[in-house]
Amino acid sequence: MSKPITGILTPNITPVDRAGRVDEDTLRRYVDWLIDKGVDGLYPNGSTGEFVRFTAEERRRIVEIVVDQTAGRVPVLAGAAEANAKETIAACDAYGAMGVRAVAIVAPYYYRLSDQGVYAYFREIADSVSVDVTLYNIPLFASPISVDTVVRLASECPRVVGIKDSSGDLPNMMRMISQIRPLREDFCFLTGWDAALVPMLVVGANGGTNATSGVVPELTRSIHRSVIAGDINGAMKLQYQLLPLFDAMISIGEFPEGFRAGARSRGWDLGPGRVPLSDRQKDAVAEAQRQIDDLLREFVDSPTAKVSNQVIEKIVHQVMSQLKGH
Amino acid sequence: MSKPITGILTPNITPVDRAGRVDEDTLRRYVDWLIDKGVDGLYPNGSTGEFVRFTAEERRRIVEIVVDQTAGRVPVLAGAAEANAKETIAACDAYGAMGVRAVAIVAPYYYRLSDQGVYAYFREIADSVSVDVTLYNIPLFASPISVDTVVRLASECPRVVGIKDSSGDLPNMMRMISQIRPLREDFCFLTGWDAALVPMLVVGANGGTNATSGVVPELTRSIHRSVIAGDINGAMKLQYQLLPLFDAMISIGEFPEGFRAGARSRGWDLGPGRVPLSDRQKDAVAEAQRQIDDLLREFVDSPTAKVSNQVIEKIVHQVMSQLKGH
Amino acid sequence: MSKPITGILTPNITPVDRAGRVDEDTLRRYVDWLIDKGVDGLYPNGSTGEFVRFTAEERRRIVEIVVDQTAGRVPVLAGAAEANAKETIAACDAYGAMGVRAVAIVAPYYYRLSDQGVYAYFREIADSVSVDVTLYNIPLFASPISVDTVVRLASECPRVVGIKDSSGDLPNMMRMISQIRPLREDFCFLTGWDAALVPMLVVGANGGTNATSGVVPELTRSIHRSVIAGDINGAMKLQYQLLPLFDAMISIGEFPEGFRAGARSRGWDLGPGRVPLSDRQKDAVAEAQRQIDDLLREFVDSPTAKVSNQVIEKIVHQVMSQLKGH
Amino acid sequence: MSKPITGILTPNITPVDRAGRVDEDTLRRYVDWLIDKGVDGLYPNGSTGEFVRFTAEERRRIVEIVVDQTAGRVPVLAGAAEANAKETIAACDAYGAMGVRAVAIVAPYYYRLSDQGVYAYFREIADSVSVDVTLYNIPLFASPISVDTVVRLASECPRVVGIKDSSGDLPNMMRMISQIRPLREDFCFLTGWDAALVPMLVVGANGGTNATSGVVPELTRSIHRSVIAGDINGAMKLQYQLLPLFDAMISIGEFPEGFRAGARSRGWDLGPGRVPLSDRQKDAVAEAQRQIDDLLREFVDSPTAKVSNQVIEKIVHQVMSQLKGH
Repeated sequence: MSKPITGILTPNITPVDRAGRVDEDTLRRYVDWLIDKGVDGLYPNGSTGEFVRFTAEERRRIVEIVVDQTAGRVPVLAGAAEANAKETIAACDAYGAMGVRAVAIVAPYYYRLSDQGVYAYFREIADSVSVDVTLYNIPLFASPISVDTVVRLASECPRVVGIKDSSGDLPNMMRMISQIRPLREDFCFLTGWDAALVPMLVVGANGGTNATSGVVPELTRSIHRSVIAGDINGAMKLQYQLLPLFDAMISIGEFPEGFRAGARSRGWDLGPGRVPLSDRQKDAVAEAQRQIDDLLREFVDSPTAKVSNQVIEKIVHQVMSQLKGH
Repeated sequence: MSKPITGILTPNITPVDRAGRVDEDTLRRYVDWLIDKGVDGLYPNGSTGEFVRFTAEERRRIVEIVVDQTAGRVPVLAGAAEANAKETIAACDAYGAMGVRAVAIVAPYYYRLSDQGVYAYFREIADSVSVDVTLYNIPLFASPISVDTVVRLASECPRVVGIKDSSGDLPNMMRMISQIRPLREDFCFLTGWDAALVPMLVVGANGGTNATSGVVPELTRSIHRSVIAGDINGAMKLQYQLLPLFDAMISIGEFPEGFRAGARSRGWDLGPGRVPLSDRQKDAVAEAQRQIDDLLREFVDSPTAKVSNQVIEKIVHQVMSQLKGH
Repeated sequence: MSKPITGILTPNITPVDRAGRVDEDTLRRYVDWLIDKGVDGLYPNGSTGEFVRFTAEERRRIVEIVVDQTAGRVPVLAGAAEANAKETIAACDAYGAMGVRAVAIVAPYYYRLSDQGVYAYFREIADSVSVDVTLYNIPLFASPISVDTVVRLASECPRVVGIKDSSGDLPNMMRMISQIRPLREDFCFLTGWDAALVPMLVVGANGGTNATSGVVPELTRSIHRSVIAGDINGAMKLQYQLLPLFDAMISIGEFPEGFRAGARSRGWDLGPGRVPLSDRQKDAVAEAQRQIDDLLREFVDSPTAKVSNQVIEKIVHQVMSQLKGH
Repeated sequence: MSKPITGILTPNITPVDRAGRVDEDTLRRYVDWLIDKGVDGLYPNGSTGEFVRFTAEERRRIVEIVVDQTAGRVPVLAGAAEANAKETIAACDAYGAMGVRAVAIVAPYYYRLSDQGVYAYFREIADSVSVDVTLYNIPLFASPISVDTVVRLASECPRVVGIKDSSGDLPNMMRMISQIRPLREDFCFLTGWDAALVPMLVVGANGGTNATSGVVPELTRSIHRSVIAGDINGAMKLQYQLLPLFDAMISIGEFPEGFRAGARSRGWDLGPGRVPLSDRQKDAVAEAQRQIDDLLREFVDSPTAKVSNQVIEKIVHQVMSQLKGH
């Protein structure tokens, strides 16, 4: 039985050039940078990768580039959702043949399917593919995958090897872990909820697929490694640094524009994205860019992510004194 | 200035064969039947047509078939939403060249865009296309298009000639009508909310794009014609017949399975659709089929939709006596 | 069997004096004014009356005053919800003894009860009281009362004589009417959704309990009488006048501050209400007061509510030409 | 400056006798039991205490009994929300005179106030009372108190000494802590979200007001003490025991019936509560009682809460091995 997927995988932004085409060269260099910075895997065609805004052909090319450039250095988890079960199965098998570690499949979106419908969809796929599958639950955007459905699929389908949960529902994460862990040691629990990465890891998640890891991979890596090492206090200090960064990037323009702005602060011009912005929005992004530049300057200056922000230090000190001194 | 689109347009189900492919022959015959039954237009690639479950190539072929088969007998409103603004613009122009009366473009889905983002998206499209555009608001499934955004687009974009609203928000329909009618006599207000078709027409909507019209086109036509003729009482009698049919069909399996079941009751085998169903769901659909058969038998027997259902009659009598006798 | 409650009942604002006490004198004069202007009933202790912001003793005194001042000229529907079923039953019986036509009981609020819990609550009350009861459904504020629960209570409880629905769900209104009318000719369906008063009456509601009727009782009366007379076009013209008034009043400060502002425009100083406002909110109310004064000036000048607003006329003309000329 | 409130405070169920009256004798004995079991405080008139289902007089009597019986052994936090700001202020001062450590005031409910309105309400109270105030945020039932409003009130009002947050929003808890801790060392952050008690404590909350502590006070105490001692792994083991208990009790009948059932399993007959149940609900409660009895048997047998549940052990082992062994 294979080991579960662990660590921080980056749902990478898809670079586009001025003409709006996938910028293959930048994507390759960005993949190298992320791996150099220590991410545990790549995750092309996630929500941060704007998979729905690319064509089926583009999505396939994106995975091809990422797999080729990664060259086995880290595992690749490829977003494989297509228009329907049949198309999705074809994409899964194509990505499997390319050598991805697993695919990630979001529940059907647009229509909100019932629990039964979500189950039937994943069951049909899991019975047909020749690649490992992780379920992707993001109820804000797609049909919710209930705890019961995840447990049922984990019980019935060997090909289903994990859940990537972006609901932010911490008790549900615990409910899934407590029911599935006794059955499946190879099953991974990944969180997409950057704002509570430490708590999710503390309750037992194996790792995360976090948009912030595409901007501050050092920080998310340090968080994961601190928790693994049992240094929860240290991890929480970093989490209190991550949160305002996450808040700043999530609130700009349309998702994932703020994360493109964050990458820009780190020196990466990943292009304009695929969603039109109004003039007012463009002004707001430019304004926010400066704020994000400031927030990120320290990271650029101190690549070890040992940020010495006085305000944060004070906060963290007090948090910790609450925990200890009491 | 062109006249607004009016009447009942059918967002037609897309027939598929046993292999799951678009069933072109059945689609052509179904289009003929709908036109014969008096629908005022066809609307391929709507939500009822499961547009998101077909590939871009299939979507284009579906419009091609419908336009060809319609052969100018009624206007065609083609759903044209694609992966991004650029792809959508290309589809719009392709459909325009095929001869559609207008396209319908749903607001971006999956991600929930802000008001500004929704505006920017439609503005970019409206400034680029050479075909009339109707906005499609369905907040249950896609980013909501606010009243203010509809008014702004109607004011700025001559190519935007209507709104197809499936929110069911009657006061919002009134707010849009009261602000846009004084500016644009060519602008149409269509409702996708079958359960309140008469009230929507009474407040001033020009017509509807109603899934039930693909099953009981005689009934939705009669409703529209009764309101036009000023026979609100007569229209309400029919609305009270339409509601239980709509309720029955909307509640079966995953949308639009219930409407496929309804079409089956009318003699149309439009195939299994594109969404996998669990065994439990398949049983439920089979069970519901009998109920829908019963509800629809009278229509089959009396093609003029002059249903003599005693219970309905009694209800309607009492409703009307409330209104009049008082 | 008694006849159903019909027409427009005013959920009257509760006047308070500068010290925040119930202003009995103003309440009596306001009741007289409303009756003079033609309202079909009074409804003290509704949501507009801020019942939750008064003490149990104050609520009882308010009903006492309204019943006494009304002196049988119009029926009184008294809001009777108290802390629990036992207290509510006691209030019901007290109000019955005072001579109210019926009580209105909102579903339990704060906690969201299940369907079963809502049923059990109303069933316990209906089995114990000696006064007619109307159910009050306002899912925005209180536990929702489902269509099934209303039908069940209407079937089982002779004391339950109506539903006051403020959900604005027009198809649900139709579902209730179609199931209950055949069983109970004495059962009334009242809408609290001013923004769609005409459509609700057109589908068969007996009347409304509308906050706007406390500000423009002439207008809501004209709407109701026009629908009764079968003049739907005329009623819709008035509805298009009512909507911007309603929108203006609903959007000011905290509910029902905007309606207090509206009453002020009609010459009624009903006091400051029971909810604290921030300075920013007070400024906003003052600003809005001028807008509402403008909107209402024509009513004050033309007491027959035959408003000749050019913009509204143009809108209405076009709406009607849509309906007729086509 | 006083020290912040810390530890686990029990929002105690209000015992009622067969006639539905407050059961003073049982309440006194229950308070003794909770204190003996190690709770850090009592919290009468919370949501678990069904404060809205008691009269103003009963609420005051309940606090009186709890304060008297507690006799200074632990601090009392008294729920003090009444019909309006004036009544609430009077209750606050009465409870202050009785000797409570602080009051807890839920945001206005029924109506959903705006941010401005929530601020104005608490500001008016905080400026008038002579007792410490904690804000109570429970957006499921009452107007939400935004992070910004909590920060503003903490900055402006010395009397506001804490927030009791039952939203379950972990990042918001972090946002409040990071902004308020630097300003106010006396300010407490309490969570009412039992399902994630450990994560909330890990991010820095001072304690909790948890309904489960009224049933298994040993367990919630152990959780809090383990986190304080830095034994996060140990705390998580207990959290994985607490979650199924919480899930079982939260899902029975109407809240807080399941917690009454839990108390019954521990030997406490706290009476039937104040909410009517349908026959079907009564059957469900009886059925669930057996399940809860089973879940709680081990606690009764092993009062140190060192439950040796094999399944839980296995889960916890695997969770921990994920964290460590990796």
